[in-house]
Amino acid sequence: MNKLYVWVNDSLIPSEEASVNISDLAVQRGYGIFDFFETVEGKPVFLEDHLDRFFRSAVLMRLGVKQGRDEIRNRIMELIKKNNLGDSGIKIILTGGFSPDGFSIAEPNLIITQQEFQIPRAMLEKGISIITHEYQRQFSDAKTLDYLQAIWLQPVLKEKKADDVLYHSNGLLRECPRANFFIITKDNKVLTPGSEMLKGITRKHVLEISAGMYETEARDVSMDELRNAKEAFITSTTKNILPVVQIDGRTLGDGMPGEVTRTLAKEYNRIIYGS
Amino acid sequence: MNKLYVWVNDSLIPSEEASVNISDLAVQRGYGIFDFFETVEGKPVFLEDHLDRFFRSAVLMRLGVKQGRDEIRNRIMELIKKNNLGDSGIKIILTGGFSPDGFSIAEPNLIITQQEFQIPRAMLEKGISIITHEYQRQFSDAKTLDYLQAIWLQPVLKEKKADDVLYHSNGLLRECPRANFFIITKDNKVLTPGSEMLKGITRKHVLEISAGMYETEARDVSMDELRNAKEAFITSTTKNILPVVQIDGRTLGDGMPGEVTRTLAKEYNRIIYGS
Repeated sequence: MNKLYVWVNDSLIPSEEASVNISDLAVQRGYGIFDFFETVEGKPVFLEDHLDRFFRSAVLMRLGVKQGRDEIRNRIMELIKKNNLGDSGIKIILTGGFSPDGFSIAEPNLIITQQEFQIPRAMLEKGISIITHEYQRQFSDAKTLDYLQAIWLQPVLKEKKADDVLYHSNGLLRECPRANFFIITKDNKVLTPGSEMLKGITRKHVLEISAGMYETEARDVSMDELRNAKEAFITSTTKNILPVVQIDGRTLGDGMPGEVTRTLAKEYNRIIYGS
Repeated sequence: MNKLYVWVNDSLIPSEEASVNISDLAVQRGYGIFDFFETVEGKPVFLEDHLDRFFRSAVLMRLGVKQGRDEIRNRIMELIKKNNLGDSGIKIILTGGFSPDGFSIAEPNLIITQQEFQIPRAMLEKGISIITHEYQRQFSDAKTLDYLQAIWLQPVLKEKKADDVLYHSNGLLRECPRANFFIITKDNKVLTPGSEMLKGITRKHVLEISAGMYETEARDVSMDELRNAKEAFITSTTKNILPVVQIDGRTLGDGMPGEVTRTLAKEYNRIIYGS
């Protein structure tokens, strides 16, 4: 693999030299936010949406971003040029900064990294299996560094041979740790939770597509509605639309990705990949 | 100030050179645990209790500690000798390690830092003012790096001119972000929450002292009991026993630290400082 470069504040440096002092509030207190987007053939996908959300997360978590939006966009473009990857993922992390007392927010550190990866350009034919887990993310409208629950659950997923986990709280669906969740009702309504979860960029664009084709609602979705759902899928930057065919060991429909999911995935992929 | 040394894994280095690569799971996902104890005149206070809790937190959060207990204790002693401070605080952080995929737990990084500080050896005469806030810490029995809520609330405390915040959930008291909470009822019962919060080392020793002097219970304590309390105090490594005299703008009793609080503080300080 080629040596990859990353930004740490104003320095574009090889990733193995990229470090932060241990006084950073991310190391001391897990405090920070981030965003993540993909590049396809060297071009960022929905970059402005992700920058919108990055700055919104920063405001929600009281982090001042020293760099302007143009400056961050320029650094991203310079990083893409320097690393010269094809398809990739780019992560922008903003930490709480070097805090003298280890508790107060300081001047944030801005880190931008890139890693190579290829997202399958056709929808996965098989679909995935998920389990459900009671949990409500704190500061759910911000993309914070808090993934304690998600990381802690990984061995549980492995044990239950599940691919992902769906959080729910007070009888309502929320989200997967790194994806949003959609169901399709028996009468072809497309539903996704409307609050108390991170509003994904893929979710946003899928909602737009879906609204033109099906009755579509972003609102509270109950566990009962999940049990009665005909189809389900998750959406994320790294997975696009990914069908869910098993939930807590129960198979949805005939165990194959359903028609509405296929139709939406086809349309979404056409927008992202132009084919 | 003298140059302070810290341990980063096997290296004892000046703190300004102490850094972790940005691929560490603390920077990527806020994942890690820690513990914190004080030294008085160069001697660790309740070190074995803190090591017990450190290893328990690690197990709860699925982090493997490569170093043995004796090795960590030896490093602490070497750090104390090297920095040669009098009274200080020592923090042991265990992060999720350098994670190739930025999501899976790797070999943890062990960081041990020390900072000078003096805890007032007599109980504060004035007492503090607190506000209450609905919140339940996740993985509450582990001392994780998750202080999102506490750090986010700091401007709120400032605005309300409060010194600390008491979390409560479902009508029950939990804890302060960095301290445990006790109340004294009108009939001199000493009560502190018994579950769903971090079990502090100071709390443990105060409970032992209190059980020999007053009717003492560690069990669910309701917001109603808080409203009817005669006295209240918090306990922590950096604050020992600190009286609370105002809660959400309401003054407790005559606004002065009460008799039970004073008695317990005097006894606790005698154990810690021998006077």
